[in-house]
Amino acid sequence: MPLVGVGDVSKRILLGRKLRSAQLGETLLPKRIALPVFASDALSSVAYAPDEVFIMLSLAGASAYVWSWKVAIAVALVMAAVIASYRQTVHAYPSGGGDYEVATVNLGKTAGTTVASALLVDYVLTVAVSISAAAQYAGAAIPVLHNHEATFASVMVVLLTAVNLRGIRESGTFFAVPTYAYMVAVLGMCAYGFLRLAQGTLPDVESADLGITPDPSFDGSLTTFGLLFLLARAFSSGCAALTGVEAISNGVPAFKRPKSRNAATTLLLLGLIAITMMVSVIVLAKQMGLRFVDPAQLERLTYPDGSAVGDDYEQNAVIAQIAKAVFNEFPPGFYAVVIVTGIILVLAANTAFNGFPVLGSILAKDGLAPRALGSRGDRLAYSNGIVFLAIMAIILIVVFNAETTRLIQLYIVGVFVSFNLSQLGMIRHWTRHLTTERDPASRRRMQRSRVINAVGLSFTAVVLVVVLLTKFLEGAWITILAMVFFYALMRAIRGHYDKVSLELEADESDNLLPTRVHAIVLVSKLHKPTLRALAFAKASRPNVLEAVYVATDPVETNLLVENWERRNLGVPLKLLHSPYRELVNPIVAYATEIRRANPRGVVAVYIPEYVVGRWWEQLLHNQTALRLKGRLLFTPGVMVTSVPYQLRSSQLAVERGERDQQRVRAGDLRRGQADDRSDPRSSGQINR
Amino acid sequence: MPLVGVGDVSKRILLGRKLRSAQLGETLLPKRIALPVFASDALSSVAYAPDEVFIMLSLAGASAYVWSWKVAIAVALVMAAVIASYRQTVHAYPSGGGDYEVATVNLGKTAGTTVASALLVDYVLTVAVSISAAAQYAGAAIPVLHNHEATFASVMVVLLTAVNLRGIRESGTFFAVPTYAYMVAVLGMCAYGFLRLAQGTLPDVESADLGITPDPSFDGSLTTFGLLFLLARAFSSGCAALTGVEAISNGVPAFKRPKSRNAATTLLLLGLIAITMMVSVIVLAKQMGLRFVDPAQLERLTYPDGSAVGDDYEQNAVIAQIAKAVFNEFPPGFYAVVIVTGIILVLAANTAFNGFPVLGSILAKDGLAPRALGSRGDRLAYSNGIVFLAIMAIILIVVFNAETTRLIQLYIVGVFVSFNLSQLGMIRHWTRHLTTERDPASRRRMQRSRVINAVGLSFTAVVLVVVLLTKFLEGAWITILAMVFFYALMRAIRGHYDKVSLELEADESDNLLPTRVHAIVLVSKLHKPTLRALAFAKASRPNVLEAVYVATDPVETNLLVENWERRNLGVPLKLLHSPYRELVNPIVAYATEIRRANPRGVVAVYIPEYVVGRWWEQLLHNQTALRLKGRLLFTPGVMVTSVPYQLRSSQLAVERGERDQQRVRAGDLRRGQADDRSDPRSSGQINR
Repeated sequence: MPLVGVGDVSKRILLGRKLRSAQLGETLLPKRIALPVFASDALSSVAYAPDEVFIMLSLAGASAYVWSWKVAIAVALVMAAVIASYRQTVHAYPSGGGDYEVATVNLGKTAGTTVASALLVDYVLTVAVSISAAAQYAGAAIPVLHNHEATFASVMVVLLTAVNLRGIRESGTFFAVPTYAYMVAVLGMCAYGFLRLAQGTLPDVESADLGITPDPSFDGSLTTFGLLFLLARAFSSGCAALTGVEAISNGVPAFKRPKSRNAATTLLLLGLIAITMMVSVIVLAKQMGLRFVDPAQLERLTYPDGSAVGDDYEQNAVIAQIAKAVFNEFPPGFYAVVIVTGIILVLAANTAFNGFPVLGSILAKDGLAPRALGSRGDRLAYSNGIVFLAIMAIILIVVFNAETTRLIQLYIVGVFVSFNLSQLGMIRHWTRHLTTERDPASRRRMQRSRVINAVGLSFTAVVLVVVLLTKFLEGAWITILAMVFFYALMRAIRGHYDKVSLELEADESDNLLPTRVHAIVLVSKLHKPTLRALAFAKASRPNVLEAVYVATDPVETNLLVENWERRNLGVPLKLLHSPYRELVNPIVAYATEIRRANPRGVVAVYIPEYVVGRWWEQLLHNQTALRLKGRLLFTPGVMVTSVPYQLRSSQLAVERGERDQQRVRAGDLRRGQADDRSDPRSSGQINR
Repeated sequence: MPLVGVGDVSKRILLGRKLRSAQLGETLLPKRIALPVFASDALSSVAYAPDEVFIMLSLAGASAYVWSWKVAIAVALVMAAVIASYRQTVHAYPSGGGDYEVATVNLGKTAGTTVASALLVDYVLTVAVSISAAAQYAGAAIPVLHNHEATFASVMVVLLTAVNLRGIRESGTFFAVPTYAYMVAVLGMCAYGFLRLAQGTLPDVESADLGITPDPSFDGSLTTFGLLFLLARAFSSGCAALTGVEAISNGVPAFKRPKSRNAATTLLLLGLIAITMMVSVIVLAKQMGLRFVDPAQLERLTYPDGSAVGDDYEQNAVIAQIAKAVFNEFPPGFYAVVIVTGIILVLAANTAFNGFPVLGSILAKDGLAPRALGSRGDRLAYSNGIVFLAIMAIILIVVFNAETTRLIQLYIVGVFVSFNLSQLGMIRHWTRHLTTERDPASRRRMQRSRVINAVGLSFTAVVLVVVLLTKFLEGAWITILAMVFFYALMRAIRGHYDKVSLELEADESDNLLPTRVHAIVLVSKLHKPTLRALAFAKASRPNVLEAVYVATDPVETNLLVENWERRNLGVPLKLLHSPYRELVNPIVAYATEIRRANPRGVVAVYIPEYVVGRWWEQLLHNQTALRLKGRLLFTPGVMVTSVPYQLRSSQLAVERGERDQQRVRAGDLRRGQADDRSDPRSSGQINR
């Protein structure tokens, strides 16, 4: 790498910056790209939601499957209502704050923080559920993975984490190819299935011959209440299909203009595709005689002779079973469906890795999360967030053995908590605006929107109640506990920031000028950095200027004193004696002493530092300066000036820092901030 | 803890410091305390060296045990020669640099660095061997630990690490009680054993009835060469008894005056005790019919009927077997011997934890190790050293399954490398002094010392050759490889420091004063820290002073500008626009721009910072300031001034820092630096 001069570097920074600002508009997403970018999470739910419906119904035996398409219709209705509701949101809140912003603005901080804690929990669960489902599809395609799903899923999370820590260049293509491939594969499979159904050549799925022993609690004939409860459970599990539809409301700023209209259209498209997929899969599975039970209760599946299938039966996911049968004469079709489904699930998990830092930065702006998360440039805070997400997800995967069915019990609560608060907020929003709006056409639009959101709320409220009733003991309590924890944590952080801000508030006494400046330059050796620090200190003309040396060794001290006098620097040298070879304490004590003698003055401590570029060089240098600065910051009336001297190798660190700044951060694309920064050459070439 | 004012704090630091300097003399060690402090490592070798002699001889069957006491005498002779040699060293080098100093001063950097790498490796092996042996004694006393020695030993290392990281108060008592108990126990056991021998009532040890099948390589009658090789192996293993005798030469400064004479006397005492113990144990074991083989080859032990004893035979350590038999009528005697032996072995391992940081600080002073290790106050560097030592030791313990016999093969090489270079250095030392010394009495003393060191060298040289011949393939190659690695690493570190030092060397051009100071005060909010930074910046009267604000949000920006104008601060406010909400890049670019416009001027960047005291508060604050300072240090022509504002909670950090400074560090006692610092109350009481 050629060395570049200082001028070059600054020009590169400045020019690169201007270039980027100008390009910003060009990175906005057209609908055909925005759809795959924001849809992977929502569409991927189709890969596990139908399975959950069949699992729940199977508790009452295979006969309950007659209800499957009715449950599918109910879920589709809720989804339609939710999609319609969010179409109102993207028009009203084009800034991309999503549910959190809607709840905070319209319902206040408590509701906003509740939504935030629900979203935090959901991100963790999105990773855990999507990757667990992906592991099951991988198990269907690669039999050797069977029964090692939890290990495989954990490894996948680790890989995703590594990729996101490094920073991946998310382009439209990155999402478009697999997402469209998934739509084509699943919708194509369904279409071909219905065609074969019409021709009467549709084969049964592999599990069609099996019988299902009802769960002991559903043995005997079903009471009306029992049936209702069963359907409620199936319905609430099916609502897992709704997870992820809110993503677009967080991404409006990334859309091409007119942003809101494009976002609303994309949302509509997404809804239509998701509903079509889900209903088709459920209807087709029912037609093909699917038998599907909780994988933890495989013994309830029986062969025609009445014997249990046993633990070595491989129960493939619903879409995998359909694909295997529909494409029984064309195995590559089966593999294509399973592989793209697995990929879309991984992509959905990646969505959480992208959304998590974005949410973190919004929360940081509002003082609900550590401020460091608010700055895109703070790589450390950002990495910590990603690692935290990964660790929580892996814990869930391991504890629940990557069983999607059990993880789903935890999943939907959080989603519907934020759905509900968001719809309620929207109703408030329209009501508030209606009090001031006078234009009849606008009033009509607002009233219509309010009705849509009210319908949405009534649907999602029912679902939330159903979910709480049917899933609380099954695992939803864990989610609620986690939400309470995050809520308390965020309030505590906000409380701390408020307290500090109060303590820092300026009053009139703060305009007083210090009466005098007593400057001390710390000397360890008489080398270039020390001379530079002396020169800089002199240039700022303090009232008193002295050099200070901590004497730990008589020989070295004498050498330095001689050298000092010979150089005739015009600054007195003060010796501090340190019997234990400690450097920090004597200096802190001396600064404190000066300040005590003149409480209205200020002590300016100049620390000569030299900076090196390589990481291992940094291990070998500057530890004492760092510790000293850390201690002096706590000493009242002291200001600490670092006078750096750049060694030749420091140029490497400058270049590394620039590369790091230019790196893509996960989530940039959906914030409308992806541009050429990921390519370090692009800004450099301007100058050649 | 009551809050103390600033004045109090500084007084406490100052007074506490004076007090400590005055007390320093009082913490020096009298001989009766110095002996146990420095002897635990050397004396503990008696707990495993005899075992190794018997193991090696057993390769040729039990008949070879007739050689055991002759091997013991040979080891004792070497030990006597080495002790005599080191008595010369403590007189000639009272500064405590030990082998490293002797080799560096007299033989040059290459020899010094070689000794240093040997010592580093030996510290690791001291921990591994001592703790493994301790685990075997624990197994003898607590049968349930049998066959879990490696796990037990690893846990012990972890515990020792934790204790040393926390900082233990090493007092004389801490060493004296167990070391004297060990001497009394082992010497008492031997004396009682010899008494019973004289009375004809000495029983046999538990293994006396067993037979030993010779190792296949020694089957048939021994050739002369085979016998010599066997004895050489037994002898070199027995020399493990010498490890640790050099410790006193590193500790001379900790002795009471006359330091060298007291150290020499203590060394003599140590030698006499160690030789007595080792020879007694070996002779007694032979008399009592001991049968002892490599624990990895237990199948070579046979019952009188010729059948192998099998894997569930518990082969107790030699001292444990003797104690069990000698005290057959008084079991508490057996337990006492085994328990104090175990304790002394743990204490010996702790010696390495103490010596390692001391060696690190000496190497750091000479530029062979990261400079941070040279400062007693650098807790981080210090902790890293201890953790490194522990990890290496645990790796050895696990890889070698805590089998002392196999670890011993690695151990003695390093010890004898430093013995040899040290003796050679001493001979050079005397020769050099003899060229200038004219006083006949002094010359005679020096000549006598040189003879002693020459005898010492000839003995240790023979041992080194024997060790290399007999142990190279058995494991010594690992040690030599590790030494080469440490040697290369230390030379590389030194090379880097030399390069940097050359680049930093001052010349005449470095006295130029900057022509002007352009100060910028970074503003994020208009609060107390900002106002303080403005006041401090004004007080230093720069040529240009402006406030700089990075504008990321138009609303906030307008608010700040209004507020700024209302306050009428007399400093212009400059806005930098940042489309990506980045804070660091715009500031760095602006500073670079100013500097470019005026290359002979200096840019003074004032950063208002507020400091908080609790660790979790520190997570919530100041990340941006830190990152910004990090980046600005790499920008030429810039000096960075932190203007701290101490929030109320910051007092907690000051107190924590003081407590940490007062903490005892491992190794303080043997550096003559232990005093009352470990008790935070002691210095505080002065002020009440």
